[in-house]
Parts: sequence; structure tokens; C-alpha cells
Amino acid sequence: MLRASDFSIRVDGLATGPNNLITDVPGVRVGHCTVEGEGQRTGVTAVLAGDHNPFAEKNVANAHVLNGFGKSLGLMQVQELGTLETPILLTNTLNVGLVHDAAVSYMLELCRRDGLECHSVNPVVLECNDARLSDIQRRAVGREEVFRALNTATRDFALGAVGAGRGTVCFGFKGGIGSASRRLRLDGKDYTLGVLVQTNHGRMDDLRIDGRQPFAGKDGQSCDKGSVIIVMATDLPLSSRQLGRVLRRGSVGLARLGSFIGHGSGEVFVGFTTANRMPNEGGPAALPLTVLREDLLDEAFRAMAFAVEEAVLLSMLCAGPETDRNGRPVPGLRQELERAGLL
Amino acid sequence: MLRASDFSIRVDGLATGPNNLITDVPGVRVGHCTVEGEGQRTGVTAVLAGDHNPFAEKNVANAHVLNGFGKSLGLMQVQELGTLETPILLTNTLNVGLVHDAAVSYMLELCRRDGLECHSVNPVVLECNDARLSDIQRRAVGREEVFRALNTATRDFALGAVGAGRGTVCFGFKGGIGSASRRLRLDGKDYTLGVLVQTNHGRMDDLRIDGRQPFAGKDGQSCDKGSVIIVMATDLPLSSRQLGRVLRRGSVGLARLGSFIGHGSGEVFVGFTTANRMPNEGGPAALPLTVLREDLLDEAFRAMAFAVEEAVLLSMLCAGPETDRNGRPVPGLRQELERAGLL
Amino acid sequence: MLRASDFSIRVDGLATGPNNLITDVPGVRVGHCTVEGEGQRTGVTAVLAGDHNPFAEKNVANAHVLNGFGKSLGLMQVQELGTLETPILLTNTLNVGLVHDAAVSYMLELCRRDGLECHSVNPVVLECNDARLSDIQRRAVGREEVFRALNTATRDFALGAVGAGRGTVCFGFKGGIGSASRRLRLDGKDYTLGVLVQTNHGRMDDLRIDGRQPFAGKDGQSCDKGSVIIVMATDLPLSSRQLGRVLRRGSVGLARLGSFIGHGSGEVFVGFTTANRMPNEGGPAALPLTVLREDLLDEAFRAMAFAVEEAVLLSMLCAGPETDRNGRPVPGLRQELERAGLL
Amino acid sequence: MLRASDFSIRVDGLATGPNNLITDVPGVRVGHCTVEGEGQRTGVTAVLAGDHNPFAEKNVANAHVLNGFGKSLGLMQVQELGTLETPILLTNTLNVGLVHDAAVSYMLELCRRDGLECHSVNPVVLECNDARLSDIQRRAVGREEVFRALNTATRDFALGAVGAGRGTVCFGFKGGIGSASRRLRLDGKDYTLGVLVQTNHGRMDDLRIDGRQPFAGKDGQSCDKGSVIIVMATDLPLSSRQLGRVLRRGSVGLARLGSFIGHGSGEVFVGFTTANRMPNEGGPAALPLTVLREDLLDEAFRAMAFAVEEAVLLSMLCAGPETDRNGRPVPGLRQELERAGLL
Repeated sequence: MLRASDFSIRVDGLATGPNNLITDVPGVRVGHCTVEGEGQRTGVTAVLAGDHNPFAEKNVANAHVLNGFGKSLGLMQVQELGTLETPILLTNTLNVGLVHDAAVSYMLELCRRDGLECHSVNPVVLECNDARLSDIQRRAVGREEVFRALNTATRDFALGAVGAGRGTVCFGFKGGIGSASRRLRLDGKDYTLGVLVQTNHGRMDDLRIDGRQPFAGKDGQSCDKGSVIIVMATDLPLSSRQLGRVLRRGSVGLARLGSFIGHGSGEVFVGFTTANRMPNEGGPAALPLTVLREDLLDEAFRAMAFAVEEAVLLSMLCAGPETDRNGRPVPGLRQELERAGLL
Repeated sequence: MLRASDFSIRVDGLATGPNNLITDVPGVRVGHCTVEGEGQRTGVTAVLAGDHNPFAEKNVANAHVLNGFGKSLGLMQVQELGTLETPILLTNTLNVGLVHDAAVSYMLELCRRDGLECHSVNPVVLECNDARLSDIQRRAVGREEVFRALNTATRDFALGAVGAGRGTVCFGFKGGIGSASRRLRLDGKDYTLGVLVQTNHGRMDDLRIDGRQPFAGKDGQSCDKGSVIIVMATDLPLSSRQLGRVLRRGSVGLARLGSFIGHGSGEVFVGFTTANRMPNEGGPAALPLTVLREDLLDEAFRAMAFAVEEAVLLSMLCAGPETDRNGRPVPGLRQELERAGLL
Repeated sequence: MLRASDFSIRVDGLATGPNNLITDVPGVRVGHCTVEGEGQRTGVTAVLAGDHNPFAEKNVANAHVLNGFGKSLGLMQVQELGTLETPILLTNTLNVGLVHDAAVSYMLELCRRDGLECHSVNPVVLECNDARLSDIQRRAVGREEVFRALNTATRDFALGAVGAGRGTVCFGFKGGIGSASRRLRLDGKDYTLGVLVQTNHGRMDDLRIDGRQPFAGKDGQSCDKGSVIIVMATDLPLSSRQLGRVLRRGSVGLARLGSFIGHGSGEVFVGFTTANRMPNEGGPAALPLTVLREDLLDEAFRAMAFAVEEAVLLSMLCAGPETDRNGRPVPGLRQELERAGLL
Repeated sequence: MLRASDFSIRVDGLATGPNNLITDVPGVRVGHCTVEGEGQRTGVTAVLAGDHNPFAEKNVANAHVLNGFGKSLGLMQVQELGTLETPILLTNTLNVGLVHDAAVSYMLELCRRDGLECHSVNPVVLECNDARLSDIQRRAVGREEVFRALNTATRDFALGAVGAGRGTVCFGFKGGIGSASRRLRLDGKDYTLGVLVQTNHGRMDDLRIDGRQPFAGKDGQSCDKGSVIIVMATDLPLSSRQLGRVLRRGSVGLARLGSFIGHGSGEVFVGFTTANRMPNEGGPAALPLTVLREDLLDEAFRAMAFAVEEAVLLSMLCAGPETDRNGRPVPGLRQELERAGLL
């Protein structure tokens, strides 16, 4: 298990799940496929809510758009129906169409296998722009890569410059995929809330770590043009409306690290609960849902903010330095903290 | 029981509740207080979700704003928390502040009676502009009127030019309060969906009754400046999100009668279910909610559209002709249909 | 020029543009590519706002989601930034990913031609489900088809079972692509508002033509599962907020024809004005925009409602009868009206 | 002029307006009326966009609801029409109805004076809950208090425990009214963005000042139940949509100080620009609006975040210690920082 505290950075005092990963939420799995070479440093990352066919049993879900300057696909239906019917896929900006198409193929095959008729399905595809490190116009993530990410998804997955995070840049440092989880105890029962982030936002100048700005005055020209994508999973019993309220607190974690939610690109949140699933069709007219007593959401709000804060930090701390397509360095946060004597 | 068919107008073939009123939903009550004289033709109408203290046990609810050019109060919290914690009050545009204050008094007294601490409460106050018939600047609806409407609320209430509908004008005719209900049978169980409308919208020229425009070419100058307020109640097991989807279909009923959702004022929908209530505080962390299988919402969508259509018609058919503050006639729809040989 | 009145159907008395098409808005062009054979009856339709590179000069735009049960792509950014930076593409549900990817290719080539750097672009891709007539799982619309639709776009284009409308079904009849336009005269100046629709919604039973239900009681089992996509163009000087208000009135046209906005699929509106364009980058800090005096929007609201109503009718009237993939007939509205002696 | 730096607290390096107040935006004025005695420590604060009649000339505006658990009134119309037609009033939670009514009186008198007909007006009334210090059930803010705040509004106004901030508590310290402003230079022209806040949120434990948590572990029981209201004014040329984007960045300032946007009450933002005004009625059909080049919004986003951060700090630093209604101390932040040797 990796924690920010392993790098002498304190985020909060809440307990984490066993691995401090989104996959601490029982059933959740994550898979990466990284695309490297021939100008490419990109990839795809898949988040699965469980082992079941998500089209047959749809997890209750919601989405929140903090800054809609982005190309993420599939949020409209998640917001209308309050459910998720495919894995969530993350990739690069110009590749969302091909990944969407691959997700359709994956779902059609899954439904065929299960004897389910499927003429309509809503893949959720989220993105960051990795053009600084990767030849984004080539759109190198296709069916094979998407299937590999989906088919290799496990509880234990890598952080940093992998999958959809292979080519992203965060606060001027190499960013990537981050994750964290928090434990909540309510009425004597344990729950977990986990997040996975794809980080591509922020200016080095602005980065606040544990309340300090160790790189103030540096890289002032870097603009806050990138996005950050945040996927949240939990086994808390939440309605779609309540999930939306939790997602809106993710911005707190971003702001605590110094982000200003720049104009330049999309900040998008998608979340689901494993505690409530809705059947695709048939069954009784009245269905049971379990929800959380509204005032107890405060616990989930804090867990969300802290998990996002730590996940963004880990996305950088787990990625090493690189050189971008123009030969300029993209430093590694860990190395720079060491160099500054802060690690 | 009054139906549009009593006036030879066909709306649909769905079954109604026993009285074709919003109060066919078990527990729902409606009360009016009409203010008449000294230039006033206005009032207040109250819709109560049940006999319980609504602050202690909050009905699951939602609101939908079709046209936000209006002064309705209290929708923000209903949309955030998905619950209703007071009766719903309807009145005239400039009176919403005083009615809000009276509703606060009512709730404080109710909570004091029940030994509940209450330092914050969210009244829902909806409005139409009755300035054509009433001296609206006087704001004649105060605490006494609001309490009377609340304290006299019953299952059997009057339609037409009463309460908050005393001074409204609809499609150039005298409008007012209308109501209708529809029965739904799902899984062998009966449910009811009812609406109450305060009608103050539309141009005479545009009015479509049973697909015809009997007053085409008449009163072409009348502008579509007024609002229409729609309150929906049901005992269907719905989530707040699902209630929102049902409310959005209310516009169908308006459009079937010839409305164009004019720029001039607010078209606002508020709805609640008696099937799901949330405690004000305390209790277990995980609470049960019952929701409807999503595809069965289609039944509720039709019921909503038809109930709105019939309720708007009845609001006019139950109101007689008047003369406005400038001495111009405001005809009664019933009389004009009779005169045209259509009744 | 084709009008509903050519089929003895009266919609309204407003003046149309010269061809009663969305392309009556100066600059707007439409292109189709129909895919036929090997189980396919599908295609793609492109709407272009002008001859300019839309990435370089972005038309002010907005989107409105009436029912979010759908897979349309690209609306999030349109709503955030209030601009459109690509042509609008319509196709079938499962093909949106590939069409999105083709649109990216088209925009990259266009920008390369114009010497513009482009690492991020937001295609708007809208869809209906044509699975009843076409083997939708094959996703037969690719780069070649999308480029053909874009490159053949003209002012004069076909209606009915062409392009993205090749395989759709509307009110139980063969649907397809429809279009209509309305003229507005404000302050002595002429403006045009036009719509293009892809129709795939409604139950035969419910269809209201000129206020009558000629097919009442017929095809009662047909469910209202399909979608309808509505694209609006105008040269009225509108802000993004004002465009949103106009789009919301499109539902009136749908409801006048008997639609109930069924649960089953997405009803999505996208609109733009040719009167306001924003530069991609650079230029002065303060930019001029021209907007409409808010109360005059009422004229645009009526034009929108009537244009949608007529466009949906024409989408059916211009399409002939077919047989679906299961051998069941999909009648043509024109033929059925003739058979019923109504034409 | 008061700055956080006067208390040795660094927020940012941006230039402020001449007084670091919202009234640095030319034309903007603020007035307070404090209600003290007989169990009351409450009041009302008014923000006026200029010396003009706001009903006759409406400032372009927008609102943003971060957490809708609150009772603020009038936002629906601001969001629909994108304009503000009254002064903005802040008060306590249960008093919003009476303040709304007083605002109606004020506007009717203003319009009568100016010979304008007014039968409908939309006051914006925002609120925090000051029940811990004040007997909120009494609703002591009425017509007289509202008119006094409006009629005494000036460029130079007091911060801290005055007006609507008289009884609020922020991060466990005495809160109140805060304000700050930032200068922006674009294209060689100076602009100002200013905010006024009413602070009633946060837990002492969580407060972060300049990145530190000086009161960590203290007052851990205090719950984050209160609200914060944020009013933003600017002379930047913005559309309503752009104002909405700026308002959404206010949350960054709150989070930088340690807020988690608690469940317990509303966090509401209202903003307007003095650079664009719309006539109440009449005039030409096409109206000019000036907007900001979209990418330059980044400057406004930072100004907004920093101004909010400093304004919240100043609301506390300008308020002294008190004792609440139950005899428990509500410390002053300044005194506690001094006691801790941090000032």
C-alpha cells in the first residue's frame, strides 16, 4: 500500500482501505493498457463496478461537470437515469470516439454471451489531453487496447504514468493515474469510498503540498490548461442524487492542492455505488433502494475531498521525469521534492 | 366529481380517482382562502401532503423549472435535498414574501406543539400574477389568510376563481385553480397521480380544445405573459430523480391546450410522493426507499400530461366571467363555449 | 418547396423561408450519406453552420436535453462554452463513436489545410436508434460516409428516409429527416429560424394531425421508445442563454403532434446562431455580441414550435412504406392518409 | 484599507482595488442595518449595483448554487433571464420572507418615483442562520431595517459583526461580513472584481490560514452546519454564462481555507457585471453586449478565488469575541491568533 505519508506528506487522519485504492470497494477492478512507441505515450484505463454484466444489472450512479470544457462521453444518460451500464473508460482527448466504439463491441459481446438482447448501450468514456507527450492526432487506442484493459482488470493495479495516465502532466510535473480510498464507520458498519484520478491540470507555481507552495515562482508560464478526471466508487447506500452531492465535494480536494479549475479543459466527475443495482428490464414494479441518512453525507464529503487530494498527489509521486515531444523536461515530483530537500 | 367530459370535452381515456382531484392521493388535502373587496380579488391556496408534521417527516419531492421568469420561492432546497418540509402555498406574485413569513410562523408553531426544535425551515411558495383583476401592490394575503387556508384544508375543495386562483386569467378567459387525477394499475396494485394547477397563461387565439381552436382569430392582442403553476402528488413509489422526470412531462399537457410557454412569466412544477418519507433527524444510517421500475414511468408520464391538460381546462370551466380593473371583460370559458354552440 | 399544407395539413400561419428548410438560414448547408444493403438501412446527416472553418470561428450555440436517455455526444462543452466548433452530425445509436472519430479526422484535416494547430476538438454527434430496420450492431457508418455527407452538403437537400433518417420509425410510420423554417420580422429586418429533425419517436395511436387523431386505436402496442433529435439554426442575434430558451420550446411542437416524451430514449436539442461567432484564440479582450431584446423571444418561441411540428410531419410525409427486419410492415403516413381519405 | 496582510496573513500577490472592497467596482454601494438587543444580534446588508433604478436598467447577472440546502430567494429568475432587477439583500434564515416583502415595497416606491409601472419584481434575498447568537424565530428585520440599509449604502462600509453578519459564526470564530477586491489588467485596461461574503460556515479544526491549521484538534465537535453567501461584482464585460463560470470558482477560495462544503446549509453565489445592462422594456430589437474573450476568464477565476479567500478571512478578523445565547464563548480570530503568538 502506498500513501502520501510514505513521502512525508500529510493529507488527513482518516483511515484508508487495505490498499488505499479505489479497488478497496469490494468488487471494483481496474485495468490499464499503455501504448508506447512511434510517438505514442498514451493508453486506456478501465474501471469496472463488479464481475456482473453491467448492462443486465446497472449500478446506481451520477456525474458532475465542474468545468465542461472537455470531450467526455456518456454523461447525459447517467444523469437522466441515475445508472451506469458499462465499465468506465479513460483515455486521451481525440481517442474518445474509437474507445467508445470498442466499448460498444465489448458490451455487445458480453450481452451475446449472456443471451441478452442489446441494441443500445451507453459507454462512459472520459479523457485528458496528453498532446504534450504523445502524438495525439494518431488516435492509437483501439479495440485491442480497450479489450486488454478490460480483460486484465484486477484489484491490484499500477499508479503513475500508465494507461490513460501515460502521457499526462499535472502541476507541471509528470502526472498520471492516482488512487486513494477512505474508510467510514456508520452504525457499526464499515464502508469504503475510493477514487481514481487521471491528472492533467494545474500550474507548478500553484501547487500546495501540506499547505506549502514548494515551487512558488517556478514555471510561472505553465498554463492551467489540462483537465482532471475523477471516478468515485463506494459501497455506501446512496441514491443518484446523493452521489451527485458527494461528487461535488471532489473540487475541495483539487483546490486544497492549489488548483483554480482553469478555463482550459474539462473537470469531470463520475461516481457509482455498489450497494444499489437496478435490473435492465422486467421484475416487480416497485424496487427497493437503500439510501444514507442525509446528514451523514458529511462523512462521505470529507472522505471524498481527502481521497481526491491524496490520489492526485500519488498520481504525480508514482510517475517519473520525462521529456516532452519538444524536448523540454517534464520533471518528476518525487525527484524535485528530494532535490529541494523536502523528501 | 367534475370532469372535462361533463362539458363535452374529451381529454383521454384513462381512469380518474374518485373525485378527479389531487386529493384522491390518500392523505393529500387542499385549503383555500380568498381575499375579496377593496380592490382585491386574490388569495392563497395550500396543498398538504398529509396529516403529519412535514418538518418531522419530509416527503420525497422535486421541482422543475420550465420557464424561470417567476418569483416562486423554496425550490432550491427541494432540488438539493429531494424533500419537502412544509405545505406548498400558492398566491400572487408580490405576496410571496408575506406568505413565506406566514408559513414560517405556521411551521414554528407546529414544531413547538410537537416539541421539535426548529431554527430553519424551507417554505415552498408559488405564484401567478393577478394584477389584471386585483390591486397586487397591496399584498393583501397575510398570516391570517395563510393560516385559514392551511387550517381548513380538506379532501373536497373548490375549483375555479378561488384562493390563489381568484384573480388569474387563462387563455384570455377567467382562470383559477384546477385539479385532476389519474389511476394507474401496476403489478396488480392501484396508484393515483393528481395535480393542482393555478392557471394564468396563454392567448385566447391559441387555445386548443379537443384538437380544435374554437377562438382562433379572437383576442389576438392578448399576450401570453402569465404563468402556470403545477403541483403534482402521487402515491407511486418514486425517487426524487424520478419525480423530476414525471414533472418534466407536465409541459405536454400545457402544449396540447395550445400553450407556447411564453417568455413572460414562470412555469414551475413541484411534485411529491406520499410513498417515501425521510425523517428530519436521527434514526439508522441506512434508510429504505421504494422506487418504480424505470420503464414503468411511461404510465406516470401519460397520467401527468392528461391530468395537467384536464386540470387546466377545469380551472377555466369552473370560473365565471368577470370584469377586470380597467373595465374590460374577462369572459368565462363555459359561457363562451355555450354561446358558440359548442357546449 | 414542400409544406405540410401540400398534404392538406395546416400547422400555422407564419411565413416560411424560401425553401421551408433549415438551409433558409443564410450559410447553413446539409449533406446526407445513406448506407443501404447487407442488412443496413442507416446513414449519416451533416449540418454545417457556414463555409468557414468552425474551429477557427465558433458559432454561438447551446444544447437542451429534454430526455437524457440517449447517446448523443459533445453537448457538455457546447453548454459550458456556448459555442459549436464542428459540423453537427446525426447517425444511429451504436455508430456515434465511429462518427465522432471521423469528425475528428475531418476537423484535423480542415485545420491542417488552414494552418491551424488543433490538438483538441469537440464533435457534436446526435443519434436515433434504427435497429428495427437496420442491423445496428454492425456500425456501418465510417469515415468515408461521414466525409461524403460533409463534402456534399448543400442548401437543397432531401427529406424522408435518407441519411441518418434512413431507418427510423416515427409514430409507427416510416420516419426520417424533416425540416422547416419560419420567417420573423423585427424592427423592419427579416430573420429566419430553421430546424432539422431526425424522427424516431411516438406511438401511432397518439399521433395528432391538425388536432385530430386519425389513427386512434391502431397499433396500440407500439411503444414510444424512440428518440427525436432536433437541430435549430437561426440568424437571429442570440446569446447562448437565449438559444437555450428557444430550444426548450421545441417540446411544444412535439407535444402538439401527440408525443408524451416517452421514457425510452433521448430527446435532444442543439441550436446555433450565425449572427454571433467567437474566434478560436487571440484578438481583443473585449468582444462584441448582439442579443435579442428578451421579450421579443416570444416570436422565436412560436417559430420554433411550429417549425418543429411541421418538420416532424414532413419527415414522415416524405418517407414511403417499408418492411422491417422481422417482415412487419412500417407504413408510410402519406399512403395511410390517402387510404383513410384524408389526403 | 484593510488587507489580510495587515494580520500577517498572505493570500496572494494580485493587486487589490483602492479599498479592497466590493465597492471598488465603480458604482457599487453597500449598506448595513444592524439589529441589536432584546435577544437580537442580527441585521440586513444591501448591495446595490449602481445609482440607477435596477428595474429600469437590469445588470447582467447569474447565480450559482454550490449547496442548495438554504433558503435564498430569487435565484430562479436571475438564472433564467441573466439579469438582476433589484438590490441584493442579505439577512437571517427565517427573515427572508419579510425582507423580500420590504424589497418589493422599496422597488414599488422607486418605480412610482420614476414613473415606471411595476406589477412584478424579483428581489434577491440571501441568508445565513444566526440562531446561535440571535433569537431567530422573532424575525426582527422588517421594512424599516431594510430601507435603512438601502438608503445608507455607500462605497465605504464596515466589515465584521455588522448587518447580516451581526450574528454569524465562521470556523467556530465570530464571523460576519467580509469583502475584498482584485485588479485585472487586460488589453491595457483596468478592471475590478470584488466580493462581499456573509460567513457562517466551517469547523475550527479545519481552518487553514496560509496553509497551516493553527487550531487543529480544537473545537472538534463544532459541526460545519452553517452557510456562506458570496456576492460578486465586476466591471469586466461578461455574459451571464461567463459570470456563472466565474462564480463556480468561488468554491476554490472556500476550500483553500479548509471548508468541505458541509451538508448542513446553503452555499450560494450571486454575481453581476456593471459593464452590461439590459433595458426593462422597449428599445431596438437587437442589443449590444460586450463579452470577454473566453480564455481570459482564467484571470477572473484567480481573482475570484483569492478575493473570496481574503474576504472570508477579513469577515472573521474584523469581528470580536462574543458569548452565544447559551453562554458559550464564540472567540474572535484576531484574539486567538494573538494568543497563539501568530499575530
